[in-house]
Amino acid sequence: MKSDKILLSHGSGGRISHQLVKEIFVSAFSNPVLDRLDDQAIFETTGQRIAFTTDSYVIDPIFFPGGDIGKLAVCGTVNDLAMSGAVPRYLSAGFIIEEGFPVDDLRRVVQSMSETAREAGVTIVTGDTKVVSRGQADKLFINTAGVGFIDNDINISGSMAKPGDKIIISGTIGDHGIAVLSKREGLEFDFPIISDCAPLNSLVSHMLSVTKDIHVLRDPTRGGVATILNEIAQQSNAGIMIEESNLPIREAVRGASEFLGYDPLYIANEGKLVAIVPRETADSILEKMRKNKYGKDAEIIGEVISEPKRVLLKTVIGGTRIVDMLAGELLPRIC
Amino acid sequence: MKSDKILLSHGSGGRISHQLVKEIFVSAFSNPVLDRLDDQAIFETTGQRIAFTTDSYVIDPIFFPGGDIGKLAVCGTVNDLAMSGAVPRYLSAGFIIEEGFPVDDLRRVVQSMSETAREAGVTIVTGDTKVVSRGQADKLFINTAGVGFIDNDINISGSMAKPGDKIIISGTIGDHGIAVLSKREGLEFDFPIISDCAPLNSLVSHMLSVTKDIHVLRDPTRGGVATILNEIAQQSNAGIMIEESNLPIREAVRGASEFLGYDPLYIANEGKLVAIVPRETADSILEKMRKNKYGKDAEIIGEVISEPKRVLLKTVIGGTRIVDMLAGELLPRIC
Repeated sequence: MKSDKILLSHGSGGRISHQLVKEIFVSAFSNPVLDRLDDQAIFETTGQRIAFTTDSYVIDPIFFPGGDIGKLAVCGTVNDLAMSGAVPRYLSAGFIIEEGFPVDDLRRVVQSMSETAREAGVTIVTGDTKVVSRGQADKLFINTAGVGFIDNDINISGSMAKPGDKIIISGTIGDHGIAVLSKREGLEFDFPIISDCAPLNSLVSHMLSVTKDIHVLRDPTRGGVATILNEIAQQSNAGIMIEESNLPIREAVRGASEFLGYDPLYIANEGKLVAIVPRETADSILEKMRKNKYGKDAEIIGEVISEPKRVLLKTVIGGTRIVDMLAGELLPRIC
Repeated sequence: MKSDKILLSHGSGGRISHQLVKEIFVSAFSNPVLDRLDDQAIFETTGQRIAFTTDSYVIDPIFFPGGDIGKLAVCGTVNDLAMSGAVPRYLSAGFIIEEGFPVDDLRRVVQSMSETAREAGVTIVTGDTKVVSRGQADKLFINTAGVGFIDNDINISGSMAKPGDKIIISGTIGDHGIAVLSKREGLEFDFPIISDCAPLNSLVSHMLSVTKDIHVLRDPTRGGVATILNEIAQQSNAGIMIEESNLPIREAVRGASEFLGYDPLYIANEGKLVAIVPRETADSILEKMRKNKYGKDAEIIGEVISEPKRVLLKTVIGGTRIVDMLAGELLPRIC
């Protein structure tokens, strides 16, 4: 690249755009589907059902402890696919870049996307780059969409929770939100807090190797565990009871949350899942999860109830309180 | 909606986000796949090949003569799918909204997406909304990704042009770019110039009803006809000769381009395609195109040559000049 900053002409569609695409994107993501360089990717299917999802990423700062916007953009879409029981396969990547953004930072983000895609076993097959003038966007936004294939005997949905089902969380909560907030605000704690940002498809495939009969999988990102449990309760027309004492929370995250006045139940996670599974298989699923590096701190945190149709928390001191969906905005640009 | 402006909390993932999704997006896009409200859409396939594409839209202004950012976001992705010969089926929509954006404008954009999707026969099945603080994005950016199915006997690619093939343009060039620029700059011309923004999948399917043996289809958006012809020449390792006198250009667009100092060959189109087809079937394809409302001004503008491996223009006065790829940036935020 001749310039070390992104120029408006990098988004022109002309010669300089082609250079950017070739030198930064194709060189990092190279694969036969992408390398055709047509305006669309083409791939074969086997007649399985398809899962399709999208998310835009506007996280600030774009580099944070445990990850960056590129890793997040791959993990987030891989995880949304995995939460349907799909095997994630193909990703698109759309970049909106502010004029003047350092080319080296873009390279670093793209490298991180490439490494994360490799870990997750997905291929980035199509993309797009737009550049807007200084001040019309903040540094870098990335959209990823993804396609995966689902076995026909899998039927996982937020609407499938049934009274008696057990609720499993795959590990500690609140790590991502607190890590990003600390970096953003320049806070330092005795123990560094690292985002949990990770692709969860291998964990899900291990869980499905125990039984295909998993009812719900959700990744508790924006709005945290509290909000997604409320979504599931609504979609399934059921209630949920969780035990505060079973919630895995790192000491450092607990301390920082108290200091900052946040409830970890509402803080975003980027490498965790909530699973709702039949009571009979809960222990064997849990055991299998704990053997995966992204599930080693998994815990059963509660169960689905028929009434009341709310999310309830049994507190450490023995009381019960209603856990509502997040109201207002907690942490803008957390993902 | 209680507020008439978009608030940061509309992007929180919590209660207010859910309200926005329900009242604005789901009500406009409602369909069985979307209405499940899981984090991913799930659909069946028939084992056909899949085309997959994405584009982000950052056009400024978001409302312009002949369209808006929503119509553009649907047409652009539908067209990228159609250019592979795929039947476009499912779209995702990711919104990045600046805090303070008028809710009524969002409603209008979403309505326009819904109408355009209906015309194109595609379904918006999954989506995402992020809100960033005032000044961190300019009004509204939309990403769409799309999935379509391709018949097994179709093989269309930028690399398939062969010497002797005819080059067809589906109609007048430069309309979109000049319409947007005029609106942006507050210019007025004697004849209003309207963007050509349109979904081209019905036109493509009419063309394919004449013969499946179409070599290349491309929509000349950013960079214009000149740039995509250069891309095709490179991908196909061939040359291209076009005749200036055959290029369909509206008088008003020609006049405005001259006034503004632009060459219509480099100006973005959003409802046009360039087709490269075997010489023998060119006339019957052209005839079929002219019967479609988006192809009525179609013309054969040139042919593929073996040497030189450049894009050449035979001028009206009889000379020949090289037509290069767009260098630099012509019109930022044109799509």
